[in-house]
Amino acid sequence: MSLIQKQNHCSKNFSMNSATTLLLRSFPLFFFLIFSTPLPASPNKIPRLRTFLRDPANTISASVSEDYETFFYTQTLDHFNYRPESYATFQQKYVINFKYWGGANTSAPIFAYLGAEAPLSNDLGIIGFLSDTAPQFKALQVYIEHRYYGESVPFGTFEEALKNESIRGYFNSAQAITDYAEMLLYLKKNLSANYSPIIVVGGSYGGMLASWFRLKYPHIALGAVASSAPILYFDDITPQNGYYSIVTKDFKEASESCYETIRQSWSVIDEVASQLNGLSILSQRFKTCAKLNTSVELKNYLDSLYATAAQYNEPSTYPVTVVCGGIDGGGASQETDVLGRVFSGVVAYFGNRSCYDTNYFNDPSDETNVGFQWQICSEMVLPIGRGNNDTMFPAAPFNLSSFIEDCKSSYGVFPRPHWVTTYYGGHDIKLVLQRFASNIIFSNGLRDPYSSGGVLEDISDSVLAVSTVNGSHCLDILSAKQSDPQWLVMQRKREVKIIENWITKYYEDLLLFKK
Amino acid sequence: MSLIQKQNHCSKNFSMNSATTLLLRSFPLFFFLIFSTPLPASPNKIPRLRTFLRDPANTISASVSEDYETFFYTQTLDHFNYRPESYATFQQKYVINFKYWGGANTSAPIFAYLGAEAPLSNDLGIIGFLSDTAPQFKALQVYIEHRYYGESVPFGTFEEALKNESIRGYFNSAQAITDYAEMLLYLKKNLSANYSPIIVVGGSYGGMLASWFRLKYPHIALGAVASSAPILYFDDITPQNGYYSIVTKDFKEASESCYETIRQSWSVIDEVASQLNGLSILSQRFKTCAKLNTSVELKNYLDSLYATAAQYNEPSTYPVTVVCGGIDGGGASQETDVLGRVFSGVVAYFGNRSCYDTNYFNDPSDETNVGFQWQICSEMVLPIGRGNNDTMFPAAPFNLSSFIEDCKSSYGVFPRPHWVTTYYGGHDIKLVLQRFASNIIFSNGLRDPYSSGGVLEDISDSVLAVSTVNGSHCLDILSAKQSDPQWLVMQRKREVKIIENWITKYYEDLLLFKK
Repeated sequence: MSLIQKQNHCSKNFSMNSATTLLLRSFPLFFFLIFSTPLPASPNKIPRLRTFLRDPANTISASVSEDYETFFYTQTLDHFNYRPESYATFQQKYVINFKYWGGANTSAPIFAYLGAEAPLSNDLGIIGFLSDTAPQFKALQVYIEHRYYGESVPFGTFEEALKNESIRGYFNSAQAITDYAEMLLYLKKNLSANYSPIIVVGGSYGGMLASWFRLKYPHIALGAVASSAPILYFDDITPQNGYYSIVTKDFKEASESCYETIRQSWSVIDEVASQLNGLSILSQRFKTCAKLNTSVELKNYLDSLYATAAQYNEPSTYPVTVVCGGIDGGGASQETDVLGRVFSGVVAYFGNRSCYDTNYFNDPSDETNVGFQWQICSEMVLPIGRGNNDTMFPAAPFNLSSFIEDCKSSYGVFPRPHWVTTYYGGHDIKLVLQRFASNIIFSNGLRDPYSSGGVLEDISDSVLAVSTVNGSHCLDILSAKQSDPQWLVMQRKREVKIIENWITKYYEDLLLFKK
Repeated sequence: MSLIQKQNHCSKNFSMNSATTLLLRSFPLFFFLIFSTPLPASPNKIPRLRTFLRDPANTISASVSEDYETFFYTQTLDHFNYRPESYATFQQKYVINFKYWGGANTSAPIFAYLGAEAPLSNDLGIIGFLSDTAPQFKALQVYIEHRYYGESVPFGTFEEALKNESIRGYFNSAQAITDYAEMLLYLKKNLSANYSPIIVVGGSYGGMLASWFRLKYPHIALGAVASSAPILYFDDITPQNGYYSIVTKDFKEASESCYETIRQSWSVIDEVASQLNGLSILSQRFKTCAKLNTSVELKNYLDSLYATAAQYNEPSTYPVTVVCGGIDGGGASQETDVLGRVFSGVVAYFGNRSCYDTNYFNDPSDETNVGFQWQICSEMVLPIGRGNNDTMFPAAPFNLSSFIEDCKSSYGVFPRPHWVTTYYGGHDIKLVLQRFASNIIFSNGLRDPYSSGGVLEDISDSVLAVSTVNGSHCLDILSAKQSDPQWLVMQRKREVKIIENWITKYYEDLLLFKK
């Protein structure tokens, strides 16, 4: 069975209506989650990173009920400067669901989803953690869009803002979390909800933002749920091959022979490619929609497919198992040589198609691809690479100096590879935070390649790691489903219990404080 | 006896040599401390604030020994932006004393003085806390200059940088503490002092920076000593009249009749000023060097004198007592009417002079005056004012909207009066920080008018308030003297003990961490 269904039904910027709702709800959740952008880390290419919640190739707006109201906040462009141009403003989108809120009188909580590297509409409806838990806490739900994405673009269109070197400079995480700070203070004031505790929630890059927000703005957020947030994948904290080591482990655990096939396939591809007509042969065997120009296209495509399957290896379908099923001979095609088996993995993943688009994982018109490419080339320098024989992939070490040069030639400015650890920390995190900070959940699924850069051990009695052995990327903050395995149900329960403790303690403190 | 001695010996930008050292050391410490900039908060004037460690009218470089080596760090102009111009750099001055350092091998501590709104040379030599305690801790001492002051000016001279609206925008606290973060990480790396705990120290505005630094950069500073830091004098946290209420209390406690004379004097001055030749009469009676143009000049001068005496009411001379001695009849002149008594207070404070300069507290060529004026008109909006009959001063309420307009007309941009509480917090500080943060000392002298905006109660078992009933501004971080009263000696001892606890705990943690 194919994991990607009805792709042709996808269209961009769906508006929300009930017909759409029904249509979308009939899709498997995985549809929204498969993720992407391709390209392994390679010495002379800027690595494209998979940090998103879902597949940008399927940019579709999940529909949400009428309880979600959209607003815009007039946001400051530059929080950290007082030049005249710093005072420019833009309209930042946020969405509120008042339905379950207990109100300001009872200081009922506010759950705030911190938008990440995508239009907010992409996440609404799939981030179920807030709506699933709001009734129990009588919580207000607010979802805030990240600057430069979706409808929260300063100065014209996304393309225009990203093209202009003077405008895109303000597009970074420090400014973004300060947007959230300003906007949330405004919201509390506006609702007279002075003592409503705020819990911020985010996933992946947004999970980093959530944990950093609690660290930088403890006076605004009482606590943070940082789902699948690789806050330690910076500088030299995490081994470069962390990501691909876990992809490899996932495949090896699914099937030793599948792993072995993939491991061998790269040199087979190279060998065929080096032959006369080799690229034609590869194009034919992989049914590529356009003839391959280079074998790298194919290798990047496969790389992305395996990494995506691993990162979004969610438990209703387990894509890694599906791909390996194809490779090991359970797929539609019954090929027996290495190339044939690898292709069977592709078919198992995508289903039978007339052809396969090797650009599938790399849509250059997608905001997430374009926007996050800028972000990793300025501040979010995640050094993801791999050496010789330390994964099932060919070597592609992350070379900082060539990375810097590539970014410079693309954007005209150098990345700042030490900025994240300078501003947010990360080194020796337990030593630093065990007697400082409180109320952060770092949740991870250990099958998620990004868990290699996550916080996997408790730091203190309220800065806690909640991991699941079989989990993948951001599972816990997605909408609960009947089919969720028990370990996922338990993970969410544990998180809710922790949040409950934070809030209970806060109300006790508040009572004493107000006396 | 006059409190201001040998003023004519002062010259700007003294270079350090041993002759100077001797000369300066023979001066009473108060000489370096008397402080200033004038002008009460008034509805239509931008209030000038006294937040400095010493008197900008006496800008003199205290000399320090040869153990202090000067260095420059190539600092990033804009940490929060990636426009091409953000990458400009400037040379930031810092000074190191290696003498007592135990070295990187033993992870001996680093004490870092965070420069404030003055050239670093002003503070070196008078900030004795680091050098006095370094031997006991085997600590490295580092003193870092605040951006835009002294020799750490981006783009040309101080005047040029301040005049240019595109350049002065980068002159703010968030950028400044990030300078300290970058520079300290660089220093640790350079010294291979990876596990040397850093304790940051600052006074007044610099004390705010120290506490904020610990909150924002806990991965860089293990703890902070925030001396006389009015971090709660923002927004609506502290009553506007906090500052002048304490000035008033200081005078009332010194002498009820002195307080009463001052309280009455303002209307007497107004009455005389309204007469024909009234300004001539006032000029004569107060021996002003230039004829008064308006009675406000005189009133601002007296306002500054009283506030300065109260803020720097240090225990070897107690200037408030000296001024009241003059007013109450113990001064050189034996006047008996209100004006005469007030003038006797001036004479007691300054000593007998041929004339008195009403611009004394407001030197427009002083970097501190000019620089901090910009800072309060952009981010450091301290709403200091007073109402009718709530202090011994005439009413001068802080009017936010006219303040904003005045700043706008002076600098072309609006101040951001809620920025400090947005970025650093401050509201409900105990509720927020009791379960978050650690290792901050908020020290205050309760006779310091700025203590009204200070943290005067313990927040948790390691975020501690250390106050002295008779203390004034920043006393604890100045060099210890033989003549120091017991309560000041005890205050410093308590602070050292607290720091010792932090460091001991840290080394215990480190041992476990490294296992």
